[in-house]
Amino acid sequence: MSHEYPRLFSVVENGSVTTPAGFKAGGLHCGLKKTTRHDLGAIVSEVPAAAAGVYTTNVFQAAPLKVTRDSIGQDGRLQAVLVNSGNANACTGKQGEADAYEMRSRFAEAIGVKADDVAVASTGVIGENLKMDRVRSGIDGLPGRLLGSREGSDDFCQAILTTDLVQKMVCVKLVVDGRDVLIAGAAKGSGMIHPNMATMLGFVTTDALIGSEALQQLLREATNLTFNMITVDGDTSTNDMLVAMANGLAGNRELTPQHPDWAAFASALRYVCEVLAKAIARDGEGATKLVEVQVRGAESDASAAAIAKTVIGSSLVKSAIFGADANWGRIIAAVGRAGQPVNPETVDIRLGTILTLEQSRPIAFDEEEALEYLKGETVVITVDLHMAGGEAVAWGCDLTYDYVRINAAYRT
Amino acid sequence: MSHEYPRLFSVVENGSVTTPAGFKAGGLHCGLKKTTRHDLGAIVSEVPAAAAGVYTTNVFQAAPLKVTRDSIGQDGRLQAVLVNSGNANACTGKQGEADAYEMRSRFAEAIGVKADDVAVASTGVIGENLKMDRVRSGIDGLPGRLLGSREGSDDFCQAILTTDLVQKMVCVKLVVDGRDVLIAGAAKGSGMIHPNMATMLGFVTTDALIGSEALQQLLREATNLTFNMITVDGDTSTNDMLVAMANGLAGNRELTPQHPDWAAFASALRYVCEVLAKAIARDGEGATKLVEVQVRGAESDASAAAIAKTVIGSSLVKSAIFGADANWGRIIAAVGRAGQPVNPETVDIRLGTILTLEQSRPIAFDEEEALEYLKGETVVITVDLHMAGGEAVAWGCDLTYDYVRINAAYRT
Repeated sequence: MSHEYPRLFSVVENGSVTTPAGFKAGGLHCGLKKTTRHDLGAIVSEVPAAAAGVYTTNVFQAAPLKVTRDSIGQDGRLQAVLVNSGNANACTGKQGEADAYEMRSRFAEAIGVKADDVAVASTGVIGENLKMDRVRSGIDGLPGRLLGSREGSDDFCQAILTTDLVQKMVCVKLVVDGRDVLIAGAAKGSGMIHPNMATMLGFVTTDALIGSEALQQLLREATNLTFNMITVDGDTSTNDMLVAMANGLAGNRELTPQHPDWAAFASALRYVCEVLAKAIARDGEGATKLVEVQVRGAESDASAAAIAKTVIGSSLVKSAIFGADANWGRIIAAVGRAGQPVNPETVDIRLGTILTLEQSRPIAFDEEEALEYLKGETVVITVDLHMAGGEAVAWGCDLTYDYVRINAAYRT
Repeated sequence: MSHEYPRLFSVVENGSVTTPAGFKAGGLHCGLKKTTRHDLGAIVSEVPAAAAGVYTTNVFQAAPLKVTRDSIGQDGRLQAVLVNSGNANACTGKQGEADAYEMRSRFAEAIGVKADDVAVASTGVIGENLKMDRVRSGIDGLPGRLLGSREGSDDFCQAILTTDLVQKMVCVKLVVDGRDVLIAGAAKGSGMIHPNMATMLGFVTTDALIGSEALQQLLREATNLTFNMITVDGDTSTNDMLVAMANGLAGNRELTPQHPDWAAFASALRYVCEVLAKAIARDGEGATKLVEVQVRGAESDASAAAIAKTVIGSSLVKSAIFGADANWGRIIAAVGRAGQPVNPETVDIRLGTILTLEQSRPIAFDEEEALEYLKGETVVITVDLHMAGGEAVAWGCDLTYDYVRINAAYRT
């Protein structure tokens, strides 16, 4: 269970992506959004950083993903990420690709780094070409807006939001080789969120010294247990991307699997990803609460994960939770259609600590107590299959009127 | 494409499950629903009929499914189906099973047929035991309510509805061996509708002479192209069941694959299933319109079906259609995450006849025209992958405020 892994780190209150040594961030409004909210932002490291990236599994991959893969692929390093919102630069053909490459080279020049040390990410409407005149003027103004303070981080976070309601950031501190190491993250993501990297952008900064391949391995593992376990609406975007930069300024010995603090670093990185993933689920379009589904006793962890994701993705379950209705029948129906091994006679279901189904039989429970529990801001559904030791946790949100309102008129 | 198969039959206006020779139907209110609407109904054939059944794939199968499988399994024959709404008799343990068997035997006795010639179906809330005193008194009153007229069929159709808004029935006529053969169907299904038999009940009556195995084969093939291609919300119920009865009173020679009218009968049966399936999709909880997704040019029909079902199941696509927003970006994002072979450079997307994406590139289209089209009662999305000859059609509905309203407070 996610709650039980060792926490050899502490949370830094008010920490952000600029808290680790050597990182600046910023954002501004260049005109891609119809509002006056920020729509272009960047994080820049003082020195080149080891880099890792995880990308959407969607067949249609937006142009900036190609550019970022290329940048990280060159030498496993990045010194900056440039992000725009308001336009996803997806399904935009050769022009879109040229635009994404131009964003990279122009920003690299503006901050005086190599072009292939810059990653590019985009989020927003699909299928419209970028208004590059606005992007260019934004890029030119961005270096003057980069700050090593919380303010710079806030500007960056605002620049990556679309229908998100709140900024999502976290920072933790741990000790490696007797030195303080900081890991921070920022993310956006609200609708179109589903396992396997859905419309979400995530950015991790750390001053740890770690190689690119080791960072890639840890980022992939953390993603599978966190970002890939959230769903808002089952849709997966063309633009998802999670990028990590480790600039080594903490001065530790290089982290490798043999390093005594490897596990601590891994768990801290996973925690950063988990906080961001849960924040994305909680901020799902129209959501009023965070829903956590814990599955235990499955044939395998993978089987548990498939069941957890089916339950968290059920529109009927999500609607019932919005209505604070203890409708465990919909939960068991979702368990039963997940395509996984399930013994139909041995399933327990709990809402919080309230047992509603035991050995697949309904248990009389206090409806008032259940109603009170379901009205809370966080709802935990536990499904125990009593078959073997497989377990997993998935996160999502309720399905509300506002989800429909937001998505019925997003583009127009 | 569903529209192109031969139609060697005609639709019987105002036809219903009692139109084929020798079938009566009826319904009444016995007290399982909180309202005064009918909640117990039956279809009875004058003589034993060849029978076939298709059932939910959910691991948790409700008690009545066990009873119906048993009845059809005995000798491939049925003379009656008994259906209740208001309570699914699912996850109700040994008591639920005993109750379902008691419904079978009591109704068989009431109408004077063998117990294993009766099928039982239930729909409604999961996990509560049936109020058997009410069911018993209902069963006792039912024989007196059976009519060979449209009125009996209407009573039956009302008895199987839950959150459905409209009755769903159809009847067609074709000529076999120079004799008129009638095939009719009735169905319920509104929420929890998804490929692979979701909360839907379907009943087909025909006076054709056909063997049980042949009927089973045709029913399975028709189901795969119709009921298994609709989705309302991605949820699959514990109670889905489609039962067909063929009583042979039309007097044709037995239909087999060698019979010259086999294809005509097969296409008429498929049409009956398609009309019911589309009616279920159109009557999806809260739906304001029917959405049809046609996929062409896929690697295989199965691949096309998987893509069509992913698009029709996308909450973002469904919300956009509710909002009459020509957001083809969401359609292509769904195509790209279906897990099927797709060439990202060769996809065309049409909304009705309006081309919005050609060879994966946006096409300027008339937004006003698209808005007018999307405001209609039926929206057809066509996706052409231009790879091979695989094709499929899926049906669903838009996602609306009312879906959330209905499902936030169903049980309580």
